[in-house]
Amino acid sequence: MFKFIRPIIYVCGILSLIMTGLMLCVSAAAWVWADPELPVFLYSAAVMATLGLAMVMLCRGGKFNLVSRQLYLLTSASWLMMSLGGALPLFLSHYDVAFTDAWFEAVSGITTTGSTVFSGLETLPASLLLWRSILQWLGGLGVIGMAVSILPFLRVGGMRLFHTESSDWSDKSMPRIQTLARALLVTYLTITAACTLSYWLAGMSPFDAVNHAMTTVSTGGFATDDRSMGRFGSAVLWIATGFMLLGAVPFTMIIGFARRPRLATLNNQQVIGLLGIVAAVTALLTLYLVFQGSHSAFEALTHSIFNLVSVITTTGYASTDYTLWGPFSVALFFVVMFIGGCSGSTSGGMKIFRFQLSYLFLRSQVRKLVHPNGVFVTQYAGKPVADDIILSAIAFSFLFFLCLAGFTLVLAMMGLDLVTSLTATATALTNVGPGLGDIVGPAGNFASLPDAAKWLLSFAMLLGRLELMTVMVLFSPMFWRG
Amino acid sequence: MFKFIRPIIYVCGILSLIMTGLMLCVSAAAWVWADPELPVFLYSAAVMATLGLAMVMLCRGGKFNLVSRQLYLLTSASWLMMSLGGALPLFLSHYDVAFTDAWFEAVSGITTTGSTVFSGLETLPASLLLWRSILQWLGGLGVIGMAVSILPFLRVGGMRLFHTESSDWSDKSMPRIQTLARALLVTYLTITAACTLSYWLAGMSPFDAVNHAMTTVSTGGFATDDRSMGRFGSAVLWIATGFMLLGAVPFTMIIGFARRPRLATLNNQQVIGLLGIVAAVTALLTLYLVFQGSHSAFEALTHSIFNLVSVITTTGYASTDYTLWGPFSVALFFVVMFIGGCSGSTSGGMKIFRFQLSYLFLRSQVRKLVHPNGVFVTQYAGKPVADDIILSAIAFSFLFFLCLAGFTLVLAMMGLDLVTSLTATATALTNVGPGLGDIVGPAGNFASLPDAAKWLLSFAMLLGRLELMTVMVLFSPMFWRG
Repeated sequence: MFKFIRPIIYVCGILSLIMTGLMLCVSAAAWVWADPELPVFLYSAAVMATLGLAMVMLCRGGKFNLVSRQLYLLTSASWLMMSLGGALPLFLSHYDVAFTDAWFEAVSGITTTGSTVFSGLETLPASLLLWRSILQWLGGLGVIGMAVSILPFLRVGGMRLFHTESSDWSDKSMPRIQTLARALLVTYLTITAACTLSYWLAGMSPFDAVNHAMTTVSTGGFATDDRSMGRFGSAVLWIATGFMLLGAVPFTMIIGFARRPRLATLNNQQVIGLLGIVAAVTALLTLYLVFQGSHSAFEALTHSIFNLVSVITTTGYASTDYTLWGPFSVALFFVVMFIGGCSGSTSGGMKIFRFQLSYLFLRSQVRKLVHPNGVFVTQYAGKPVADDIILSAIAFSFLFFLCLAGFTLVLAMMGLDLVTSLTATATALTNVGPGLGDIVGPAGNFASLPDAAKWLLSFAMLLGRLELMTVMVLFSPMFWRG
Repeated sequence: MFKFIRPIIYVCGILSLIMTGLMLCVSAAAWVWADPELPVFLYSAAVMATLGLAMVMLCRGGKFNLVSRQLYLLTSASWLMMSLGGALPLFLSHYDVAFTDAWFEAVSGITTTGSTVFSGLETLPASLLLWRSILQWLGGLGVIGMAVSILPFLRVGGMRLFHTESSDWSDKSMPRIQTLARALLVTYLTITAACTLSYWLAGMSPFDAVNHAMTTVSTGGFATDDRSMGRFGSAVLWIATGFMLLGAVPFTMIIGFARRPRLATLNNQQVIGLLGIVAAVTALLTLYLVFQGSHSAFEALTHSIFNLVSVITTTGYASTDYTLWGPFSVALFFVVMFIGGCSGSTSGGMKIFRFQLSYLFLRSQVRKLVHPNGVFVTQYAGKPVADDIILSAIAFSFLFFLCLAGFTLVLAMMGLDLVTSLTATATALTNVGPGLGDIVGPAGNFASLPDAAKWLLSFAMLLGRLELMTVMVLFSPMFWRG
């Protein structure tokens, strides 16, 4: 048993040390700012360092040939470890944050969801705001790494579709994972820097620019003000739209393009699908707003594309309370909440490729009907796709709606109304951030939910972030007997 | 082309003549009752007889070896024909019913949905009430016939799972199909008679007993009073619960049991699943109501099981406005709306077997993970199930949610709020009847919806009744090119 979990504890120890490093960064900033929370971050760093060192020392050495059962456990354990580290400074802060709230906020951060229990954000110490942004930034990096290196090897949700794609770009002569990690980190840092600079040039303060850049490229959505992005002009909204979209495309594509800037690299089936959906729903909503006469054409376009991209990329910023735009807007935002971005990006949701695979499957059914004796191979991005991958991908959507139903029922049992229960669950499972209604809507706040609901939604966020089955197999007795 | 559609027109002609016969039955009753609508039914019968005879005469003779493309077209055409026949007397009646309303009501009847645009039902002439009930009864019979004879041959929604025995759709199997059809009709008539008698013994008037029996065994849900089943005592509610459940189990099982009454025949995987779900949700809701202190234990049990079975079997009666029982009740009724009954029964919804197949698939995924080199065969009801059947079944659920999203958006664009749009679509696609909210909820009425919404929901009811893909292939250019 110890042999089985040793590499898992080792990796958690490494993550603990990484979080120590990030806490020390915030401590340095807090020291410069003479921030009252400095001792909190130093103390948290000490705790995480001790924990991390103990885990690493205990479990170092040994072989690292992980079997897939270990990969499943590793995935869940890593995200729990990061959430714990994330919650620590929030819990210990001078703001009397209950552990439930600290945990919810940390999970919401590390899963890049962006739902918050904090209000009066603009009055919080800068160090706490920075920590929230860093959590999302780290979570975004983590999820890309996971999507590229671990998920394609697991039999969940059709992600094996990307098994080949991710191994294609690396040089055979170099250690693959290390090359991958370095390229990812450099690209991620570069994009974050570019986003920071753009925000700053568009008029944000340096502090706001850094924070929002970190929560934009990670498609997280934490803001530094209760008005979210509502206090910025249209220049910022358009910049944010661009970088949220960049955060929702496959990072391997960005890396590939950076190495060899050719248009052909951008010809990615997922990206085309994503942009097509964004264009279609933006056009619809813009027309709706213009015909209502409440917005000028440019205003309508800006707010439509910003808020829709925010929800589709599962970021969760809002420039205004779009639920006041009428019933069509409410229904549209509810529906697009589920779509999500591309696999291998920082965004959550059901993901574009699952819709595409389902469409291809349904088309092949019609073909088979018209030509009963024909043999048809489903092709995706020019390559044939095995039936069991399509099956996994479509089964994911089924499982997703089962989870949605189950969690909604439990929340309703706690006394929450249907729209709140349903959309809070949806927004947690898809890692979007805001739901609908007064409590969890874009103008609301998760603080008033019962504690049990916060724990449940934290679980839903982790479940969604790790593509459901990755976590759910751990609850199967078969997994532990095996 | 004429050769292609000839058998389809022929079958529509036969259906037209069957509807003529039913109209003459109502005319006879209207004559006895001195009902003011007698001329309407006689006139409608004349129209349908002319139409039917013309179609039959034009297209009789010729071979009846249908290819599957013809079966798809036949299925949709039959239901449109029956809806048209159903709408005729309602449209021509003295009640100034707009054609949109007549069509909506007829489609809701023939698809055994049970949503209504009529209010003040208790003031309508008996002939119109009887006609509504007959439509549902006919629709119930039609859907069982379709599920047994046509759907297993089509590559849609995993229904080929029920393509059993040595059956194929050719002249050779005609005697088999005729025997089966006779057995179905006799069984259906017997159950209806038993239900009528039970209702009458429990205190209903003979007229109410006949009407409710027809809409109970067909899991339709039309009532003869705006209070639905709310005006009857608990004896009626329990009888209705029993017969609704009977209407939701596979009819071939009932026929088998009637022929050879052995317990083993009842050991049907779908039925066990259905009863398990009913037991679980009834227990939950009963406890919820008892703990709220609003109902006595027996009252809570009676109303819980009646209304839940009504929604799960997609009947749609209500004994009271269960949306006033608190948020958990609202969410529970919303979720169970999707489940549906067994395949081969009169009920709609997503159907139990699809949930079971999805569960089996997910379990096999966990197995494969624990034993990566093992070979696992998914078994359903003791028989191995091919991957492409599981794929079709799960793809159905995906398509279902896509339709749900699309129709919800269009309804919202017409100005309906999210809960109304979402639940009206859901209740139409699943053929349940009532949705949630003031307008389409169990205490509401579909009359106030815009005309466009009524047309859209009529389409959704037909789509749901015919298992989505059966209708949707007709919109594919490939289908017509083939």
